[in-house]
Amino acid sequence: VARVLLDARNLPDLARGCAVLGTGGGGDPLVGLLMALQAIEAHGPVPLADLDDLPDDGLLMPCGGMGAPTISIEKFGEGSEGARLREHVERLRGRPVVALMSTEIGGSNGLRPIAWAAAMGLPVVDADGMGRAFPQMFQKTMEVAGLSPTPAVMTDERGNTLTIEHVRDGRWLERTMRAVAVEWGARACTSSYQLTVAQARTATIRGSVSLALHIGAVIREAREDPVAELVAVLAGHRLLDGKIVDVERRTTGGFARGTATVEGDGRTLVVEVQNENLVAREDGRVVASVPDLITVIDAQTAETIGTQRLRYGQRVSVIAFPCDPIWRTARGLEVAGPRAFGFDFDFVPVERLHG
Amino acid sequence: VARVLLDARNLPDLARGCAVLGTGGGGDPLVGLLMALQAIEAHGPVPLADLDDLPDDGLLMPCGGMGAPTISIEKFGEGSEGARLREHVERLRGRPVVALMSTEIGGSNGLRPIAWAAAMGLPVVDADGMGRAFPQMFQKTMEVAGLSPTPAVMTDERGNTLTIEHVRDGRWLERTMRAVAVEWGARACTSSYQLTVAQARTATIRGSVSLALHIGAVIREAREDPVAELVAVLAGHRLLDGKIVDVERRTTGGFARGTATVEGDGRTLVVEVQNENLVAREDGRVVASVPDLITVIDAQTAETIGTQRLRYGQRVSVIAFPCDPIWRTARGLEVAGPRAFGFDFDFVPVERLHG
Repeated sequence: VARVLLDARNLPDLARGCAVLGTGGGGDPLVGLLMALQAIEAHGPVPLADLDDLPDDGLLMPCGGMGAPTISIEKFGEGSEGARLREHVERLRGRPVVALMSTEIGGSNGLRPIAWAAAMGLPVVDADGMGRAFPQMFQKTMEVAGLSPTPAVMTDERGNTLTIEHVRDGRWLERTMRAVAVEWGARACTSSYQLTVAQARTATIRGSVSLALHIGAVIREAREDPVAELVAVLAGHRLLDGKIVDVERRTTGGFARGTATVEGDGRTLVVEVQNENLVAREDGRVVASVPDLITVIDAQTAETIGTQRLRYGQRVSVIAFPCDPIWRTARGLEVAGPRAFGFDFDFVPVERLHG
Repeated sequence: VARVLLDARNLPDLARGCAVLGTGGGGDPLVGLLMALQAIEAHGPVPLADLDDLPDDGLLMPCGGMGAPTISIEKFGEGSEGARLREHVERLRGRPVVALMSTEIGGSNGLRPIAWAAAMGLPVVDADGMGRAFPQMFQKTMEVAGLSPTPAVMTDERGNTLTIEHVRDGRWLERTMRAVAVEWGARACTSSYQLTVAQARTATIRGSVSLALHIGAVIREAREDPVAELVAVLAGHRLLDGKIVDVERRTTGGFARGTATVEGDGRTLVVEVQNENLVAREDGRVVASVPDLITVIDAQTAETIGTQRLRYGQRVSVIAFPCDPIWRTARGLEVAGPRAFGFDFDFVPVERLHG
């Protein structure tokens, strides 16, 4: 099997694609891109492994950063966090890690495991635990599949390291890790929900790294109307083209929260944010919501604008597109549907809202 | 060597003594007493071991509860926390625990390890890590002695369990554990700064369980003026007899904070509290402060009134007495002197303030 190598030629496309799938969150992709490029320059390219290329009982380490994207552009980590996560995961699981996996393909978290894998000489698998980005630690396909979140490992740039041996459930993992992350400065690196290759075949979003690469290439190569070309490849919907007229944003409780308001064509769209873009409303009516994906992109270039970079006056398109089917199952909606975020409405697929 | 057995006959004295040494904090001793009595009824008495009775390389497990004393009377734990701490300490240290030790002799924490030890069939050592109670996790004689706080283990009544593998220093242990404890409901059980028997000879307060038993017996047997008899055995000072005229108290950031104001004999004393009584002032002038001990006791019976039970109208004596000499060293004051709590004054020994 000819494997794709992740290197300086394709990483910028990957970063573009991760940004789109990040729905505004997952950490700033530019930071992850620079880290990955630097690590690959030092250690060589990283193989992108298909799950079928790895031994069934091989241990995968999902990993990434957690915290507020507003902090992700201020506090980068110092590079050895991935090695510490691996050391403790291997100690706790009693066997070697065969490949790293992004906990979430969205944002910087789609790229950071590549930086760590380069230094370790390990591959990254073509899969992730969300197919997008979500703010809370338990909002993963592994949780939907019933896998245990523990043992989970957390570390920061100071070397502070802790292991969560047991939690009552994924929500207690989130509560505990979030409290620590806030205390550590609203960013930390984590691994939870480790799994075997065999488990990953049904408990992850397969092919998401390839998808992000493809999305990135489409944006880079687009000529006429990049927004339209991106929407087409995502089977998505162009909710509104317009200007950002208001951004309300605060970093609180370890999350970036707020709203962005876009006006255009006499219409007004409000996007509600908790790290990621969660809900888009027009005149109070929901026009797209989690777990479907809502991304704010540059109206000209179709490059994504993360929640941490939204500003008054930007000319944007707000697009929405369908999530992986796993998130539309009953258990998927329990974990990451509107009500999991405290919204009092039921999920309606974006293609039905705009049918 | 004839060993003291901790049982239903002497535990009430121990609880009285722990209350005095708790300086208002350490958790409500009544709760610890009831837990210890119940465990001893079920499993038999607990040997009180002198360090010289144990093998030099034997592993001691300091343990206890952390959180706000205001919560200690609402949220008791469910009994298996100590066994979980031991399981993880033995796993992380790679050898068996030979005895439990109170992290702090003060308050409920002087009694809770006895309840756990009864169920385990282990002794408790006649030593502790403070000789009193302090609010912060690093304010221990083991920190003063330069021992590592990690690996540290934390668990709660839900079974949530985590291990802190490494922290930059004791203050990061405190920050990390406090953040988790708050999230878990302002109470958790912990073990940190585990040490060998040989290390404990110079890195703990020796004889503190015996001292608490003795203090408790003095209070129980006192006839004429229990306050005077208690002050005498402590080589202490009777700062003021009077009435509590104001209590300001809030549970915030995982601590109980506030002040208690006592009036008597035309004088006014204000006691500042962070879980424990930290500073006593008369007309703004410091008349006693950490690391020396300040305890508010019933004016008639000399029974201690914890910070969580202070009320308007109580007739009290405020007493102060010298701490163990280790706390008056330069490193001791760095860890637990007035400035370690954010006060802007230097420590003056209570006996010099009232010489």
